[in-house]
Amino acid sequence: MNKNRLEAFSDGVIAIIITIMVLELKVPHEGEFSALTEKLPTFLSYVVSFIYVGIYWNNHHHLLHTSKRVNGAILWANLHLLFWLSLLPFATGWMGENHFAPATTAFYGIILLLAAIAFNILQIKIISEHGKENSTLAKAVGSGNKEKLSLACYFVGIPISYFVSQWIGVAIFVLPAIMWFLPDRRIEKEIEKKAE
Amino acid sequence: MNKNRLEAFSDGVIAIIITIMVLELKVPHEGEFSALTEKLPTFLSYVVSFIYVGIYWNNHHHLLHTSKRVNGAILWANLHLLFWLSLLPFATGWMGENHFAPATTAFYGIILLLAAIAFNILQIKIISEHGKENSTLAKAVGSGNKEKLSLACYFVGIPISYFVSQWIGVAIFVLPAIMWFLPDRRIEKEIEKKAE
Amino acid sequence: MNKNRLEAFSDGVIAIIITIMVLELKVPHEGEFSALTEKLPTFLSYVVSFIYVGIYWNNHHHLLHTSKRVNGAILWANLHLLFWLSLLPFATGWMGENHFAPATTAFYGIILLLAAIAFNILQIKIISEHGKENSTLAKAVGSGNKEKLSLACYFVGIPISYFVSQWIGVAIFVLPAIMWFLPDRRIEKEIEKKAE
Amino acid sequence: MNKNRLEAFSDGVIAIIITIMVLELKVPHEGEFSALTEKLPTFLSYVVSFIYVGIYWNNHHHLLHTSKRVNGAILWANLHLLFWLSLLPFATGWMGENHFAPATTAFYGIILLLAAIAFNILQIKIISEHGKENSTLAKAVGSGNKEKLSLACYFVGIPISYFVSQWIGVAIFVLPAIMWFLPDRRIEKEIEKKAE
Repeated sequence: MNKNRLEAFSDGVIAIIITIMVLELKVPHEGEFSALTEKLPTFLSYVVSFIYVGIYWNNHHHLLHTSKRVNGAILWANLHLLFWLSLLPFATGWMGENHFAPATTAFYGIILLLAAIAFNILQIKIISEHGKENSTLAKAVGSGNKEKLSLACYFVGIPISYFVSQWIGVAIFVLPAIMWFLPDRRIEKEIEKKAE
Repeated sequence: MNKNRLEAFSDGVIAIIITIMVLELKVPHEGEFSALTEKLPTFLSYVVSFIYVGIYWNNHHHLLHTSKRVNGAILWANLHLLFWLSLLPFATGWMGENHFAPATTAFYGIILLLAAIAFNILQIKIISEHGKENSTLAKAVGSGNKEKLSLACYFVGIPISYFVSQWIGVAIFVLPAIMWFLPDRRIEKEIEKKAE
Repeated sequence: MNKNRLEAFSDGVIAIIITIMVLELKVPHEGEFSALTEKLPTFLSYVVSFIYVGIYWNNHHHLLHTSKRVNGAILWANLHLLFWLSLLPFATGWMGENHFAPATTAFYGIILLLAAIAFNILQIKIISEHGKENSTLAKAVGSGNKEKLSLACYFVGIPISYFVSQWIGVAIFVLPAIMWFLPDRRIEKEIEKKAE
Repeated sequence: MNKNRLEAFSDGVIAIIITIMVLELKVPHEGEFSALTEKLPTFLSYVVSFIYVGIYWNNHHHLLHTSKRVNGAILWANLHLLFWLSLLPFATGWMGENHFAPATTAFYGIILLLAAIAFNILQIKIISEHGKENSTLAKAVGSGNKEKLSLACYFVGIPISYFVSQWIGVAIFVLPAIMWFLPDRRIEKEIEKKAE
């Protein structure tokens, strides 16, 4: 089984996810700028989610770039990741429409957490298919500190959003986005090392 | 006519189908976790359909992998399959919103049945284009026990959903999904045999 | 400029058009089969449009298969075709929801007519880019009887839908679909001739 | 990192943006032609946006055609462009539904302005990656008069839409579309020069 159609299909699904989120931004019935202010929370939640989906697309791109083969387990691990990402428009819309109510912000964090777990599972499946010894990816990921830190942020942010303050929760959820936004040079470095 | 654009187009349609299903998960207007519980049936129906579409994409991938040429009949058999799959978001939403009411569950089974029949027709058209003797696919499919068993499940599940219990019906509809979820090694085995 | 990205983009747009039409099939709030009967006109209009978009995708595939280069005029002629096709979901939904009311059926015919004209313009632009003498497409299209017959059907069907009977109009609109459904062997024949 | 997946992903997102705009054209509940007249402003705003997205796709195509490599900065500059383009369906729908009310027309211009700025940033990032001396793109763009003129139109059109007349504003917003509609031969010329 070759990886091209897997990449193309994932690109398609991610492209649709990132775009249909904007459909939650319902057009206001009044034609005044004041009508936009009530859309502000939905807009902000859209911005955060757009960046998150962008990061996932970028990381997904890197992940599959290193893999030569795909098997059934990788295919389903990939669909599992796409499943949680596909719930992001729903979570984004719910959080935005309810002005970051505690439950909605915590729920948003839960979806981010489950997507991150799914991404880690996919990473593990790809590494195990290629053999841990020779895997460019295994060396690049190393001890996976970035992955662990992200999971920790979601784990901490979810109860804080619900029990303490949703705004602190949102701030915590934005941390991994910033961390991943800075491009993940690990994989590129390993590819360069191998080329030498 | 080459098969690349057929694959790309099918991937596009399937990617959209799997993603727009989530649009049936309407964002609740209350920002409490309790608002999510009424979404549970819609969510469950979404999970089942997501897995089904994932299976179809996977099997479609295998099916076209073995075929070298496509003709007009294959093209229309493919569009016929996409047509029934495109009704899955509607059937999923109807079943979820009405909490698996008997008629909606039976209707869901009918769409699954028609999609399965369409898949079998596509399989037959691809085999006949390539000649039954030399076809990797013909050997892989063999007597088509898996295909027959799936059709039997849908045939039995539809009246049971409507006249007996929708929950038994749903359980029966989930069986083929489990069976196909386990990757179909038949085609891969035949490809390996040929390579030896 | 190469044609691959033009094909990929057109495939994407056509795949989305064919799939979002199903979003006009709104999920009924009652969970009885009787709730589906009122959806029947929308469903029928969806079937007709699905076949039409399938035909356009198929013909578009053939059209670009013969062309080696694309220029700015071809690119805009292609977007012009996609524009009218993009209005098909709207026209389909309007016709279906209003149970084939005369004005809606006539409007549906107008969109079909404009899409057909756009397709002819695209064909002319591709032929002129490649030079009429050497163009495989020019020879395949020949006097363009099929194209002329389709346009005639739309021209006749529109006033009949509005002033006489929408059902006769629909029957006339289905004629070109049947005619084009039978695969257009002209282009394939010319390609074969050239290969000899 | 190679540019193919970036092109494919951008094509996917742009194809979805251009198509979901039509979803703002809500199907009227009456089946008379008179029901279409109230849709006219939405339709007109759809036409303008369709042409704008078509132009962006076309220019994006040219831009990436000249670039051999992509880096992290280009990737995010590209997502930044897609972000503003993804808000075009919202801006289009708002303007259309409110019959070009001043605030909505000015907002539409703001989105056009931000998309244009994003496009310029992307252009700068691609040029700097390839080295200003050798860049085909740098030579093609030259002093960037077309880009500067477009930005000027948006800058002028926004306050005019809001404070003077939205119709003059719309007319000003249409000017860059006409200017870009005429295909940008600069890049093609530079490619030809290099080939000599």
